[in-house]
This record gives sequence, C-alpha cells and structure tokens, in this order.
Amino acid sequence: MTAEENLSRLGITLPSPPAPVAAYVPWVRTGNIVMTSGQLPWVGEQMRYAGKLGAELTDEQGYEAARLCAINAIAQLKAATGDLEKIRQLVRLEGNIHCAPGFRGHPGVLNGASDLMAEVFGDRGRHTRTALGVNEMPCDAAVQLSVFAEVED
Amino acid sequence: MTAEENLSRLGITLPSPPAPVAAYVPWVRTGNIVMTSGQLPWVGEQMRYAGKLGAELTDEQGYEAARLCAINAIAQLKAATGDLEKIRQLVRLEGNIHCAPGFRGHPGVLNGASDLMAEVFGDRGRHTRTALGVNEMPCDAAVQLSVFAEVED
Amino acid sequence: MTAEENLSRLGITLPSPPAPVAAYVPWVRTGNIVMTSGQLPWVGEQMRYAGKLGAELTDEQGYEAARLCAINAIAQLKAATGDLEKIRQLVRLEGNIHCAPGFRGHPGVLNGASDLMAEVFGDRGRHTRTALGVNEMPCDAAVQLSVFAEVED
Repeated sequence: MTAEENLSRLGITLPSPPAPVAAYVPWVRTGNIVMTSGQLPWVGEQMRYAGKLGAELTDEQGYEAARLCAINAIAQLKAATGDLEKIRQLVRLEGNIHCAPGFRGHPGVLNGASDLMAEVFGDRGRHTRTALGVNEMPCDAAVQLSVFAEVED
Repeated sequence: MTAEENLSRLGITLPSPPAPVAAYVPWVRTGNIVMTSGQLPWVGEQMRYAGKLGAELTDEQGYEAARLCAINAIAQLKAATGDLEKIRQLVRLEGNIHCAPGFRGHPGVLNGASDLMAEVFGDRGRHTRTALGVNEMPCDAAVQLSVFAEVED
Repeated sequence: MTAEENLSRLGITLPSPPAPVAAYVPWVRTGNIVMTSGQLPWVGEQMRYAGKLGAELTDEQGYEAARLCAINAIAQLKAATGDLEKIRQLVRLEGNIHCAPGFRGHPGVLNGASDLMAEVFGDRGRHTRTALGVNEMPCDAAVQLSVFAEVED
C-alpha cells in the first residue's frame, strides 16, 4: 500500500503544511535529503497541545501531540516531494518534549510520532531518533519534531 | 551582491572564527555539506551575552546574541570554504536558547540569526530551523547556534 | 593502528549495540552518512549513570557517562558498517547533558566522548559538536549522545 492509501485507511487528511512562525522555511532539500523545520502540534492556527508533560498534560495527550507533529511533518514532506512515494527512507526524527521536573515518559510520548511513521511508510518509515526534554518551548508547544528523509533522485 | 559585499554594507567585519572550547573541531565537510559546531556569542574571548532570556537578558539582547552567533557561524563557513560564494544554500539553523521558566520569545530571538542570513546570503540564505529552550548552557551563553550549509563541489 | 587495535589497547570490548528503548532503529545509513539514535550510558540493561550533573553526579562521573555513550555509539557504527575501518570521518557529536540549575561543566563532560573518539579513530575521529543542557532526560540518563559519521562507498 502507498503512504497515501495508509493515510486514508487511518482516516487522516493531510493539512496544509503549517507555515513557519518566523523568518525561516518549512523544509529544504539538499542532495537526496529533505529536512523539515521543527514541527509543532498545530491544527490550523490553533496550538492543539500546549503546556508541559508531567504537569498540564498527560502522557496520552503527549502521544497525540507527537502524532500531530508527525502528521504536520508528513504534510511538509509531501510539499517537498509532490508525492510521498518519492520518499525512499525516513532517516531521523528529532523529538523534543516540553516537560516539568521529574518527567520520564519521553520514549512513550515520541512513539506517537514513530508509530504513525511505521503505519504510513512501513519499512521506509524506519528512523533513528533522539528524545530530549526541553524546559521551555516556543508557543508553549508540548512537542517539537524535526524530520530528515531520503528522497529519490 | 556577494555575501562579502552584503557584510560590508552591514558594517560587519568577520572575526577570526572562534576556536572550540574543548576537544572538537569548529566545522567538518562531508560531501557537499558543511556543518559547524555549536556557535556561542563570543566577541574574541569575551562571552558578550551571558545569562538567561526571560531573566537577566531582554528579548532584544537575545536577538543580538543570536545575530552574533550567526556572524561567528559565517566566519566558520568562510574558513571551511575559503569563499562565501561557494555556499549554494544554507540548509539548517539549530537554535537553542538559554532561558528561564515561562520564556516564550524563542522565534523572535532566533530571528536575529535568520534575518542576518537573509541579509547576507539572500535566497541562498533560506534555511530550516529548530528552536529549543535549554535550562543550562555551556559558558552561560544566551544562545547556541549550529549551521548546516550546502557548498559547491 | 586500526580502530579495533586502539580499542584493544584501551582495554575496551565493544558491547552488543544497545537496543532502542522504543519504536525506532539504532542507526540508519543514507548515502555515505550513518546517523545513530541517541545513545545512553547503558551497560547491558543497566543505566550506569542516572541522575543530573550538578546534583547527583560529579563532573568526573559525567565524563565517564559520556565515554560510555561513545562506546555504545561505536558499537552501533560497527553494526552499521561491519568494519570500523570503513569509517572515513566522524562528522558530528550531538551531546546533551542532564543537569541541575547552575551547571556549567558541559564542555569537560562531553570530552569524555570526544577524547575517546580521538583515541580510537585518530584524525578520522575529528568531529563537530553541540553541547546542550537538558532539564529532564529519558531513563534518567546523565548524557545522551548522537553520532554522524561518513563511511566508505
């Protein structure tokens, strides 16, 4: 199945790729790599998941926030490639979690992004990952996710 | 106009590229990519902007700190390429801000770096960006900025 | 001397490369670059260095934690390449330190990783580096280290 077919099966309609919140661009291609800027859990112009994990937000909400960042990242990858089938391989997810003292749920929260990438891209969705805590996040976002992907010539 | 002409127009003289503060190198080239180490707001051996945004430093000072990191990064890119015209495209700015609880000004502060890149490199200066808060920064630096750039063969 | 000979000389036996703690893979190759996921200071299934620098852990323990992350990263690079002599050049260490308020020892702590890379790979071990503080780290790890390396065709 194609990535688009998997998105349909999951009931996901890709949004317009979110615009940057400042003086940068949402993705750049260099050679066979596309890198996205840090994606936040926007739905349209609404920050859907604001606050800190381990304080205002539950791990379940964090998982959904990471999944939403991944949906926004896939929208950027589609804008960059025109066709998600041109993505050969995800390479890297850099996951950053806005969190309160003592939070330890980073791996499970970021699986919200990783699990979606596996469902949408299958083996092409395999990726390396970093998972860091962040004391204060732009726009009070719960999660910030950057994606590196290898694309066809 | 060339990048050097734009620097002149802005009244910026590139410094000697700052030396690393430990056992690493300031830039590496791999294929057509140059990556810099994390650049701090040094002027010579002086940390010009020390402290946390949202506490000791204003957003305006943060903007200047990010701009200074970008100047130091451009000095590294010149050392790496010998000629800034060999830079085809900036690819990525990884921006990290030393900040106190409740700080939300990351996008504006990092525009200090992004705006300068646009002024110096024009369309070649377009880049993806990440913007994270950091609880404690090496050398008490206000900002740490890493740059990825695509260069000519 | 080869990297393996240097490891022997240092009395280091590479461990089995640590398994990811969630839904991602430990390394990906894209073109001539291998990137690892964030490596933590595991010894087998034991988190050897848990806690925060500047609170529960000394800088000396942090140095050892960073060194252990680097050993685990080398194990990943060996799994990725089959032979450490296929590594042309380390490119980047992204070092992240779990730390308490006021901590400033990032550069010295991360030299635990950088010094080992120099001892094992010699000139091929030269790398760019980032050094950030992290308020809360997955698995309470003291350090998280990601490695980018350029490998042979």
